[in-house]
Amino acid sequence: MFGDGFPDRQREEALRGAAEPLDGPRVEALAALASELGVWLVPGSVCELGEHGELFNTQIVLSPEGRLAGSYRKVFPWRPHEPYVPGDRFVVVDLDGIGRVGLNICYDAWFPETMRQLAWMGAEVVLNVVKTTTADRAQELVLARANAIVNQVFVVSVNCAGPTGMGQSIIVDPEGGVIAEAPDAEPTLLATDLDLAVVDHVRTNGTAGVNRMWSQFRPGEPAIPLPVYGGRIDPETWQPSNFS
Amino acid sequence: MFGDGFPDRQREEALRGAAEPLDGPRVEALAALASELGVWLVPGSVCELGEHGELFNTQIVLSPEGRLAGSYRKVFPWRPHEPYVPGDRFVVVDLDGIGRVGLNICYDAWFPETMRQLAWMGAEVVLNVVKTTTADRAQELVLARANAIVNQVFVVSVNCAGPTGMGQSIIVDPEGGVIAEAPDAEPTLLATDLDLAVVDHVRTNGTAGVNRMWSQFRPGEPAIPLPVYGGRIDPETWQPSNFS
Repeated sequence: MFGDGFPDRQREEALRGAAEPLDGPRVEALAALASELGVWLVPGSVCELGEHGELFNTQIVLSPEGRLAGSYRKVFPWRPHEPYVPGDRFVVVDLDGIGRVGLNICYDAWFPETMRQLAWMGAEVVLNVVKTTTADRAQELVLARANAIVNQVFVVSVNCAGPTGMGQSIIVDPEGGVIAEAPDAEPTLLATDLDLAVVDHVRTNGTAGVNRMWSQFRPGEPAIPLPVYGGRIDPETWQPSNFS
Repeated sequence: MFGDGFPDRQREEALRGAAEPLDGPRVEALAALASELGVWLVPGSVCELGEHGELFNTQIVLSPEGRLAGSYRKVFPWRPHEPYVPGDRFVVVDLDGIGRVGLNICYDAWFPETMRQLAWMGAEVVLNVVKTTTADRAQELVLARANAIVNQVFVVSVNCAGPTGMGQSIIVDPEGGVIAEAPDAEPTLLATDLDLAVVDHVRTNGTAGVNRMWSQFRPGEPAIPLPVYGGRIDPETWQPSNFS
């Protein structure tokens, strides 16, 4: 919706006209599609109409049974162009028998806190759905790899293809290696199997066989103060919820 | 000192033998060198003997007058191989008339919290001194760029050359562009002038002309909870100390 030449005000009006609550016909139709195909479906993000008339940029996860298994309201709207109200929480979703997915939208990836928080909540793969129409897709390719490396998770960053988007979707493994990448903005299908057990393997054996950042601390070590967050890295709680 | 084939215990003994307090002869000699040359000198890190016999991996900054202008004890030792006691705080140093430098050692760069905290403390350039002897230098090149991008700072990551180190030092601008890079482990001199005013320019005008992550929030917006840190991103305090 952005970088498309529309003045910001017209865009907001257009979005308001298209907004629906998550129990509206758009999500219902997408859920029916997931059910028909028998797949887990994350069809990008939708324009959600909130309980009080707010507009949210909301990523949804639909189950093979056609159930809305989870939703995430983008915490970092792309300002000033994106008129959405920010979400207030990060979301992971368990795909039964498969693993835990962290939800993440576009500009969120520019804030390393988002994927750090998701990894800590147990995400083994983060699905970053993107509509980047601008030259900064170059930076996003670096960030996809870095976010994978520091958190030892898979990162799937799916960007809109041309002519509107810059394409260059990328799938990264927990050591930062590129599994698949669209070279340009041409419409492309990237299909791959992710072995989520690799996450635990890398964390246990180390990135490049050496670095185990989630196993950094020894019992009783003091917390590391992080005034930027009014918080800290606390050795007592420094591990993803599903890694020990 | 690491990845050099020494068993860990011998290494600790060797380090203990070489450790000195920061007012010892090693730092004194380096300070004399800075004074003789009339330069700001950051000669990697030294093995510091602490007040209670602890060993710290400590980066030092020496002024053109031969003064110890600042020191930083590595917060994230490279475990299990590195026997140092972790530091307990992050450090920036003002170079009179030049700008503010954030100090950072090697494995610190694998924790995005370190450079985030330094940028928030006003660092315009982060000096990451490295002795990486292992294959994970590949990941560190990605992280140097990502740490620059998300914080909109210069990152200078200076790695030890061969035969011990993997070389590949890199200097990155606040948009993640590579200013200079050693292609391999051969000893190399990288010399460049950094225009630190670019930091403010990029933050004001946006990375790639669009992204202004330090200007994300509007007055009165709620904080974003980050349970991973027992903290939050607070719009009231979300800006580097020297950027407004």
